[in-house]
Amino acid sequence: MIMSQTDNSSNKDLVILQVELGLRGYPITIGRGLLSQADKLTDHVVGRQVLIVTNETVAPLYLGRVKQSLSGFNVDEVILPDGEAHKNLATLTRLFDTLLEKKHNRTTTLVALGGGVVGDITGFAAAAYQRGVAFIQLPTTLLAQVDSSVGGKTGVNHPLGKNMIGAFYQPRAVIIDTESLLTLPDRELSAGIAEVIKYGLIADSELFNWLEKNIDSLLARDLDALRYVIHRSCRIKADVVAQDEKESGLRAILNLGHTFGHAIETGLGYGQWLHGEAVGAGMVMACDLSVRQGWLDSADAARAKHLIARAKLPVLSPESMTCADYLAHMSLDKKVVDGQIRLVLLERLGKAVITGDVPHEQIKATLIDCGASVD
Amino acid sequence: MIMSQTDNSSNKDLVILQVELGLRGYPITIGRGLLSQADKLTDHVVGRQVLIVTNETVAPLYLGRVKQSLSGFNVDEVILPDGEAHKNLATLTRLFDTLLEKKHNRTTTLVALGGGVVGDITGFAAAAYQRGVAFIQLPTTLLAQVDSSVGGKTGVNHPLGKNMIGAFYQPRAVIIDTESLLTLPDRELSAGIAEVIKYGLIADSELFNWLEKNIDSLLARDLDALRYVIHRSCRIKADVVAQDEKESGLRAILNLGHTFGHAIETGLGYGQWLHGEAVGAGMVMACDLSVRQGWLDSADAARAKHLIARAKLPVLSPESMTCADYLAHMSLDKKVVDGQIRLVLLERLGKAVITGDVPHEQIKATLIDCGASVD
Repeated sequence: MIMSQTDNSSNKDLVILQVELGLRGYPITIGRGLLSQADKLTDHVVGRQVLIVTNETVAPLYLGRVKQSLSGFNVDEVILPDGEAHKNLATLTRLFDTLLEKKHNRTTTLVALGGGVVGDITGFAAAAYQRGVAFIQLPTTLLAQVDSSVGGKTGVNHPLGKNMIGAFYQPRAVIIDTESLLTLPDRELSAGIAEVIKYGLIADSELFNWLEKNIDSLLARDLDALRYVIHRSCRIKADVVAQDEKESGLRAILNLGHTFGHAIETGLGYGQWLHGEAVGAGMVMACDLSVRQGWLDSADAARAKHLIARAKLPVLSPESMTCADYLAHMSLDKKVVDGQIRLVLLERLGKAVITGDVPHEQIKATLIDCGASVD
Repeated sequence: MIMSQTDNSSNKDLVILQVELGLRGYPITIGRGLLSQADKLTDHVVGRQVLIVTNETVAPLYLGRVKQSLSGFNVDEVILPDGEAHKNLATLTRLFDTLLEKKHNRTTTLVALGGGVVGDITGFAAAAYQRGVAFIQLPTTLLAQVDSSVGGKTGVNHPLGKNMIGAFYQPRAVIIDTESLLTLPDRELSAGIAEVIKYGLIADSELFNWLEKNIDSLLARDLDALRYVIHRSCRIKADVVAQDEKESGLRAILNLGHTFGHAIETGLGYGQWLHGEAVGAGMVMACDLSVRQGWLDSADAARAKHLIARAKLPVLSPESMTCADYLAHMSLDKKVVDGQIRLVLLERLGKAVITGDVPHEQIKATLIDCGASVD
């Protein structure tokens, strides 16, 4: 489903993947210094108006060069406060206010410059503004580069649940400048690696093996190592999305560890743990539960837990959360169908399975073994 | 593109039209007493959970019988205040709050029971809740029955512009109970007739001629006359939507009079004039401007104005609005492309044309002749 090519220009590092979704298909371009290469952006701008959405952390680092690349367009900007706590309807409203105050019309292009929060909000704003305008993803965190910027899931959180309000809405292009990872805080680098480990666990045991050998190069921000895992991760994501854009089946495998992880994020309040950190602990829980089903080998579960720990991610539940907290939040998850909690587990390392068939008692046993408090 | 059939059951009044949109296609069922016929509704409910959204005016009249038809499902309800002034993000948020508090999952079905405002908000809530759940339209006003419930335009207003935030999102079914028109206030009946007149003007001179002869039967709520115009209007709408779901071209003809009308609604503040009233005056303006282009015959423009007046609709601008007010609001309209105001005009009676080529001076002349104040 995916076309991969290496650009034959002077930039030997450039990789282009195509997400195959017919009329809604789009390229993912991965390389060094792309934010400063004007044509990489302007090729995908639709009209003359552009709204760049970014945050207070990213703006001082990269907003200037993106505006420079877009000189010649009518560019407005919104600089949001940083963090998941601001991924809500109030922030979304602020984007609509700006778009209307600045008289942006249907041919405007929204540009999301930042991490997953900026991308998710901007994408949903683009989906809903005038019932749909163009948008481009410029992800600057590893998590956004390997996961949230690709595949068209957009939205905001509600106090009662994460990503509960949103749309499936594809960008015109995803442009990944690996150099932006050089300024990423360590904690966020690890959070991104959580999603890379996820791809290994659900679909690519070779990638998992590679990570066991090379995790230290990633943590040291070797740009070749980073480009390798971004390319490999995006290829898996694009392939899954091309087969199941709106998550009627297969796409749910991308949520390994996420049902537990969302419960942690919601239970602690958004912004306490990073999404990738919650997914790290959530994947340990999913592996534990997979062993209890008699599927995953306990030695492989131990390898996964060890790799997650080496990536400097949590492998235990926050102590403050009880089993009851988890089950309450998990019963509100989007993956719940008629009261049954649906979970992504591992049949073996490199092969995910979706199941609605796990007794609550087994989930509780896993939660307690992973450090959740007894009710 | 449209299949029309008469049900061969005992109910000889029943008409079913199909909106042909492939996997997103759906039936429009028109007849007497449908809100009390359980199977007409339950055939289209997806899971066990239902949220009925209605308003304070409609609830005492019809909520009971709809709940009766849905007995056996887990039904929650939200009763909104009545009126366009409440078609905003705050009301939308209230729907999301209820859906989450009542733990509705992805297989829930939203049911919009009411006029255009209820349908537009509920449709957008369905589009955005968990990135998309099922919804059914039960329109109870003539305007909603002939226009807003069909075609998938959903959304809410922003203080700076009408319908600026929304989605194209198709319902699973539209069920039109003509008897609900027996309780409709006179003013709202006329507002609905405005859209029926529109269909005659843009696409169906035979319908226009019929209206000239039978407008008094409609105003007297003859149910056979009403069913006739609903069927004929929905057929035109469904046909246009099937050809251009997302308004990249043809669909814009459905906006005859709406660019002027939206300016009136925004200029006066939502809820002062009904949408159909603003469209009535807006269509007179569009006809006037069409004559100025040398297209529409002035005698036919006079016929249109006379019919609109007989339908008890305004044919003049509110005095409080100036030409500058109109042009300011019109320059924010979704139909603006790169600063050019795009208008739907009439080439002749029964044939619309879309143009971006009308000088502001001519628009001003029309506005002044139609009662707008000089700046």
